[in-house]
Amino acid sequence: MAETVELLVCVTCRYRDERDPDPEAPRPGLMLADALEGRVPEGVVLTRTECLSNCTRGCTVALRAPGAWTYVYGNFAPDQAEILLDGAARYAAAPQGLIPWRERPEHLRKNCIARIPPLEA
Amino acid sequence: MAETVELLVCVTCRYRDERDPDPEAPRPGLMLADALEGRVPEGVVLTRTECLSNCTRGCTVALRAPGAWTYVYGNFAPDQAEILLDGAARYAAAPQGLIPWRERPEHLRKNCIARIPPLEA
Repeated sequence: MAETVELLVCVTCRYRDERDPDPEAPRPGLMLADALEGRVPEGVVLTRTECLSNCTRGCTVALRAPGAWTYVYGNFAPDQAEILLDGAARYAAAPQGLIPWRERPEHLRKNCIARIPPLEA
Repeated sequence: MAETVELLVCVTCRYRDERDPDPEAPRPGLMLADALEGRVPEGVVLTRTECLSNCTRGCTVALRAPGAWTYVYGNFAPDQAEILLDGAARYAAAPQGLIPWRERPEHLRKNCIARIPPLEA
C-alpha cells in the first residue's frame, strides 16, 4: 500500500490533568512522537504538528487519509504508543478508515474527540 | 472566490446538556442546519453530515477548505446560526483559515473542539 495514511501527533501537548511547571521539561506530546518514531506501520507516515487545539484532553493525535474519515483522539500518555501503532494499522486497513467497533482499541473507543468525513462524502 | 470552503453541520447532534426524550422531535443539529440553509456566504457550501463524534459538546460543526486548517467547533444552539455565518465568512477570508484571534467570534474562541493542519503543512 502507498504511504497515504498520516498519523499526526501534537508535540506541544501536555497531559490533561498534569501541567508541568518546568517549561524546559519535554512535553508529553513530544515524548509520544519520539516513542512512535521509526515504528509506524507500513503505509503510515508520522507527522509532528503543533497544537491540534485539544489542549484540555491531550496528548492529542489524528489519523487521516485520502477518501477516509479523519479522526482526532485524545488523552494519550507517552507510554501508550503501542495502542496508537495498533490503531494506526487498523485504520490503514479499514475501508474509509472506519475501524469496526469491536476491533477498535478500547482507548480509541473511549477517547475520540471528533471525526470529519472524507472529502468525497 | 470559488466555492471551496465547506461548512459541515452534524444533523444528528443533540444539545450537550439536554437530551430530548422524544425520538421524533427534530434534532438541534438538524434545526441548526435548516437555519443556515440558503444563507451561507459566497464561496461557502453547506454540507449536512451525520455524527462528527463530538456528541457530548454538540451541536457540532466543522469548517474546511483546501490548503486551510480544518476546525471543529461545538456547543452550538440552533439559534446561533448568525455567529456561524459570520465565522464561516471570516474563515473563508483568512489565509489558511486562520482567523486572527481578535477577529474571531467569541463562541469560536471558546468552543474549538479540535483543528487539523492543511494537507500541505
